Amino acid sequence: HKIVILPGDGIGPEVAAAARAVLEAVGSAHGLSLSFESHDIGGCAIDAHGDPFPESTAKACAGADAVFLGAVGGPKWDGGGPRPEAGLLALRKTLGAFANLRPITLFPGLERLSPLKEERVAGTDMLIVRELTGGIYFGDKVEGDETASDLCSYSRQEVERIARIAFDAARGRKRRVTSVDKANVLATSRLWRNAVVALRDAEYPDVELDHVLVDAMAMKLIERPAAFDVILTENMFGDILSDEASVIAGSIGLAPSASLSESHGGLYEPIHGSAPDIAGQGKANPVGAILSAAMLLRHALGEGEAAAAIERAVSECLAAGIGTGDVGGSASTQQVAEHVCARIA
Amino acid sequence: HKIVILPGDGIGPEVAAAARAVLEAVGSAHGLSLSFESHDIGGCAIDAHGDPFPESTAKACAGADAVFLGAVGGPKWDGGGPRPEAGLLALRKTLGAFANLRPITLFPGLERLSPLKEERVAGTDMLIVRELTGGIYFGDKVEGDETASDLCSYSRQEVERIARIAFDAARGRKRRVTSVDKANVLATSRLWRNAVVALRDAEYPDVELDHVLVDAMAMKLIERPAAFDVILTENMFGDILSDEASVIAGSIGLAPSASLSESHGGLYEPIHGSAPDIAGQGKANPVGAILSAAMLLRHALGEGEAAAAIERAVSECLAAGIGTGDVGGSASTQQVAEHVCARIA
Ligand SMILES: CC(C)[C@H](C(=O)O)[C@@H](O)C(=O)O
Ligand SMILES: CC(C)[C@H](C(=O)O)[C@@H](O)C(=O)O
Repeated sequence: HKIVILPGDGIGPEVAAAARAVLEAVGSAHGLSLSFESHDIGGCAIDAHGDPFPESTAKACAGADAVFLGAVGGPKWDGGGPRPEAGLLALRKTLGAFANLRPITLFPGLERLSPLKEERVAGTDMLIVRELTGGIYFGDKVEGDETASDLCSYSRQEVERIARIAFDAARGRKRRVTSVDKANVLATSRLWRNAVVALRDAEYPDVELDHVLVDAMAMKLIERPAAFDVILTENMFGDILSDEASVIAGSIGLAPSASLSESHGGLYEPIHGSAPDIAGQGKANPVGAILSAAMLLRHALGEGEAAAAIERAVSECLAAGIGTGDVGGSASTQQVAEHVCARIA
Repeated sequence: HKIVILPGDGIGPEVAAAARAVLEAVGSAHGLSLSFESHDIGGCAIDAHGDPFPESTAKACAGADAVFLGAVGGPKWDGGGPRPEAGLLALRKTLGAFANLRPITLFPGLERLSPLKEERVAGTDMLIVRELTGGIYFGDKVEGDETASDLCSYSRQEVERIARIAFDAARGRKRRVTSVDKANVLATSRLWRNAVVALRDAEYPDVELDHVLVDAMAMKLIERPAAFDVILTENMFGDILSDEASVIAGSIGLAPSASLSESHGGLYEPIHGSAPDIAGQGKANPVGAILSAAMLLRHALGEGEAAAAIERAVSECLAAGIGTGDVGGSASTQQVAEHVCARIA
């Protein structure tokens, strides 16, 4: 299995190294043959190649069985010129990684970390399914100093494709999908809602479906996070709501993601950013990255048992109080990874 | 002073009646001469006139010194055909009500209402300044069953106009503005950020300015709500973040808003919706509406003392445990209004 690793910027290289160490450990323990190759993306690729998504990186990713990404971006590249984030968007588009799965789970024993009162957050276990290659992220942009615009567009086919992922996932969970839109204002949201309803009625009558406006959802996530099962939404709303949900469950450093494609093994990345303020200090929480590696094993390589072994090891470490500062622990990034590896072996 | 009241749908009429009663009470107590006229908007206007914003309503609003709105919308009008919300958007646009001020304050004694741990939420006192007549709400829409689109556009002049409101407000507070955008992805956000920075440098060097991406802001609002002073943002992001912030401070039923215009006394409305599930039951919290009436007195009529009298009376009632069910009380909508009136008199 050929895995391309894109460490990226800020804390990206640190968490990517942690994820790779864990993949190697689980590879030996479970007899998997994994090969790794690293390439540049984002800000470091701008510095080295003048391009946030160099041709060499694109080629390597396209030829890999799965791609793992650390994080991209940082104030260093904020001053005009090419943006690191453009590399990530190009990568998602190139791989056709349209289905971003962001599971948000409260780890037992970590209730105290949540900014929410413990009784509110107990039992939180949701899967946010975010459309990742459409919407306002990829519509025509008019840059300008006097006027500027971004076009948000969706086709029925794009909506159906991501809705199908959500309904299928719901069948393996509590069979409930909450679709989030702003149908009282946006044309794309009305198309979204119609397409989701039609698909449910035609193919998923066994899945419960409801609709919540994005502003109301921003409230409900805080009021009763444990009430949700699968949350289905478009690109921009998914960006905002998944970050919100991740802190509710304790720390954004804990949340993994998988971005699935119809033609490729997909892209796996923690949902946190490059956190330049703590880069290079060994403070970054590697759990989101490590759990993304588990998703990689499950979704890209079909190695569900190896994935489960990682998830078990992570839960045990967290329950034992082994963690970085953001989860109240005192371990370094690397120490957390070593503990996880030790439990796997 | 001529005030047009638009009760609207759902709980709108109940909270509008409460706000009007309080305005009348403060009018007698402070010797103001206020006249009231009610008109239809939203769903009830669709039912009565076939139009969510009938000509008669538009004319009355244009001729008023200030407009008070309850709420619009409901599932009754979800089935295709004209939408109630279109009436509200047309009203905002007609009045030129571009500057939506949404103060979010934790009332002392109500910490226990917040879904957040009390130590996190203590001291929360922010003003969200939301651009209200631009962005994706008002750009070209292409409705469609196969493809649909919404255009988000902003001009420098629109950004400067709303940023000025935020900077001016900050001067009367803690002199800190946090501007929220998605400049790593959107062209409109890059224009937004440039225009805000340029205006600060040229005219408001005494105000501290920082920039937070909208996804990070959805987290930070929960992690440390008390850290913010003035939050400046565009229309859609403001919609989402202000709802999120309102529940953090205890209940969306408590939050008022003022929408200021350059050519009109403005529009005043609670930030909650029409809540059809509790309509007609006397359960709606009238505090957001009553505090919106206070903002009306201050901003539209220049009656700061009368406004402060309302705010004081509301705080006293809440501190005394007088409130609707959502804030842990047992009073009806009308009873809360009566208590506020009694304290004013
Ligand atoms: C870095 C940025 C472009 C990206 C996004 O907005 O999609 C990030 O916030 C994420 O959620 O993965
Ligand atoms: C009713 C709706 C159109 C409105 C908006 O999105 O602006 C509401 O949510 C608000 O925030 O005032």
